[in-house]
Amino acid sequence: MTADRVRRLEELIAERELDLLLVTDLVNVRWATGFTGSSAVAVIGPDVRTFVTDFRYLTQSAEQVPDFERTIAQSDLLAGAAGTLPGDGPLRLGFDDATMAVKTHAHLRERLRDDIELVPAGGLVEELRAIKDADEVAKIREAALLADAALRAVLSKGLAGRTERDVALDLELEQRRRGAEAVSFPPIVASGAHGALPHAEPRDVEIPSGTLVVIDWGCQLDGYCSDCTRTYATGQPDPRDREVYEIVQRAQEAALAAVRPGPTGREVDAVARELIAAAGHGEHFGHGLGHGVGLAVHEAPRLSATSDAKLVAGQVVTVEPGVYLPGAVGVRIEDLVVVTEDGCEVLSGLPKDLTVVG
Amino acid sequence: MTADRVRRLEELIAERELDLLLVTDLVNVRWATGFTGSSAVAVIGPDVRTFVTDFRYLTQSAEQVPDFERTIAQSDLLAGAAGTLPGDGPLRLGFDDATMAVKTHAHLRERLRDDIELVPAGGLVEELRAIKDADEVAKIREAALLADAALRAVLSKGLAGRTERDVALDLELEQRRRGAEAVSFPPIVASGAHGALPHAEPRDVEIPSGTLVVIDWGCQLDGYCSDCTRTYATGQPDPRDREVYEIVQRAQEAALAAVRPGPTGREVDAVARELIAAAGHGEHFGHGLGHGVGLAVHEAPRLSATSDAKLVAGQVVTVEPGVYLPGAVGVRIEDLVVVTEDGCEVLSGLPKDLTVVG
Repeated sequence: MTADRVRRLEELIAERELDLLLVTDLVNVRWATGFTGSSAVAVIGPDVRTFVTDFRYLTQSAEQVPDFERTIAQSDLLAGAAGTLPGDGPLRLGFDDATMAVKTHAHLRERLRDDIELVPAGGLVEELRAIKDADEVAKIREAALLADAALRAVLSKGLAGRTERDVALDLELEQRRRGAEAVSFPPIVASGAHGALPHAEPRDVEIPSGTLVVIDWGCQLDGYCSDCTRTYATGQPDPRDREVYEIVQRAQEAALAAVRPGPTGREVDAVARELIAAAGHGEHFGHGLGHGVGLAVHEAPRLSATSDAKLVAGQVVTVEPGVYLPGAVGVRIEDLVVVTEDGCEVLSGLPKDLTVVG
Repeated sequence: MTADRVRRLEELIAERELDLLLVTDLVNVRWATGFTGSSAVAVIGPDVRTFVTDFRYLTQSAEQVPDFERTIAQSDLLAGAAGTLPGDGPLRLGFDDATMAVKTHAHLRERLRDDIELVPAGGLVEELRAIKDADEVAKIREAALLADAALRAVLSKGLAGRTERDVALDLELEQRRRGAEAVSFPPIVASGAHGALPHAEPRDVEIPSGTLVVIDWGCQLDGYCSDCTRTYATGQPDPRDREVYEIVQRAQEAALAAVRPGPTGREVDAVARELIAAAGHGEHFGHGLGHGVGLAVHEAPRLSATSDAKLVAGQVVTVEPGVYLPGAVGVRIEDLVVVTEDGCEVLSGLPKDLTVVG
């Protein structure tokens, strides 16, 4: 599984004119090596497959990382990795500059000989991570189905009269009980005007009847994340709320129909954005349309007004337009989809027509 | 509350010959400003109290950070912070090098004029954070009591016959239901030989009768963490297990008796280490005696063979010796304590004599 990933990584390493890549970001390490522990670095390049961990992971790394030459570092993983580098001649060594701390970088620099150049290579592994293989898509689908089932169980107990915080905690626990390792982010449960904050935190406030409730949630299963949003009504919504809902629903479905290999993130974002603007809510949709999801809940690619990269088959992205009327109401509808050869397939399964929950 | 913290910070800034300190690490921001959100930086120095966040936190920052000059950044917090720096003359600007990523540092550097020098200042805020005020000790105590109550509830259902993973999940959920914001780390539940791994992950394996079970757990409440370990017996333990338990218990109590202002972390560590070595298990205690706990579950100071800093009143530390017989059994006993003027006070309340749980 990871042998193929590492080969593609090697091609990118050559393209960027690097000799070797030092992978320290643990999500990147997991993707490239299969290792799920909390302490490891890898060095990858032509004919180089080095994996360094500490004594706690002797057995686990032997099972999970059979394709790499494994080293148990005595004290310090970076010193351990430095000790495995080829002994002569200048080297351009790429590293995860997006996550390596300045202090760690200085520490690493001291452990390398002078003719090794440290070259920022953040985004290199992430570029490959953005395109999922069948096994990864299957895991994300499973996480999405678990999250759907957990929300159904929570909704069966009703929303009105419970506090936002109660519902959010219940949703988190339901996902954990059903086998999720973790939530992929703390659930958002936001009713009425609070729903107009895209990143609302659940409050100790009872959800009233006759309002809308935005629920944004997801879980992590076997390392892979899900992410979905639905907006429910507690009793018959008033005409304004219903109208906002329908605008968002149309925008979300139009954007879904535009997801396929070829268009840029900006072009897909524009489909929803123009529809919402035409309905008079252009300034009420203040975030991007979506983002990639995988081992991290936010990863490449972005679907936004500044994203010029073209969509590619195998990417898994969210499609999540929203309309937020400050002080009044918010609606967001989000699906998780995989880009296929000729369109996309939705991985999240809950209905999207406005549903009244007691 | 934070006004006094910032004054002490100012003294340290002057001692290190800095003009200003840029605080980006969110735990440090919380400690210095009181802000609990997920997006902020602060700039602190003589007569400078600047706080930068994004539009989502307009209201929350006004409530939580009244003593600072507040700015809402348009796009980028660091550009926002750079824009508030005094306009003329060279400046030495300290920054959190232990957590700022290399890429972020390069981005920040581009936004600063050439006569501003970025100086690594990691550990500066952390040094002050290590000494807790009465309010912080009260919060840690409350977290420890909540965690104790949650474990009692879990133990009342027994251990033998349940899987390690079931018990760990139950313990996590009990803490969340009782009001914890989060667990301070995923609980460790490790029976029999698995207990010989200090960082064991709970398995889908039933806990047998007649063995020892190491449980290491903690929660986060109002930002502050707890951390505690107990080792229980499922049925009457055999003589070897009982002997190991008693050695660890004696070492833990001797080390507790040594915790007071004055001795170094190394000296307190040595009390437990020498007692364990004298009992023939010197090589079976492979980790440090303890660590500071506060807004982070691992922070300054360290109690270990390499820690030369003296203990100071107000520090909150763990005291957690262990003996690990590979392939056989492990015992660890851990209390969370606050260093007082003439000794220490234990914040965790569960009994330490070997207890049989069904």
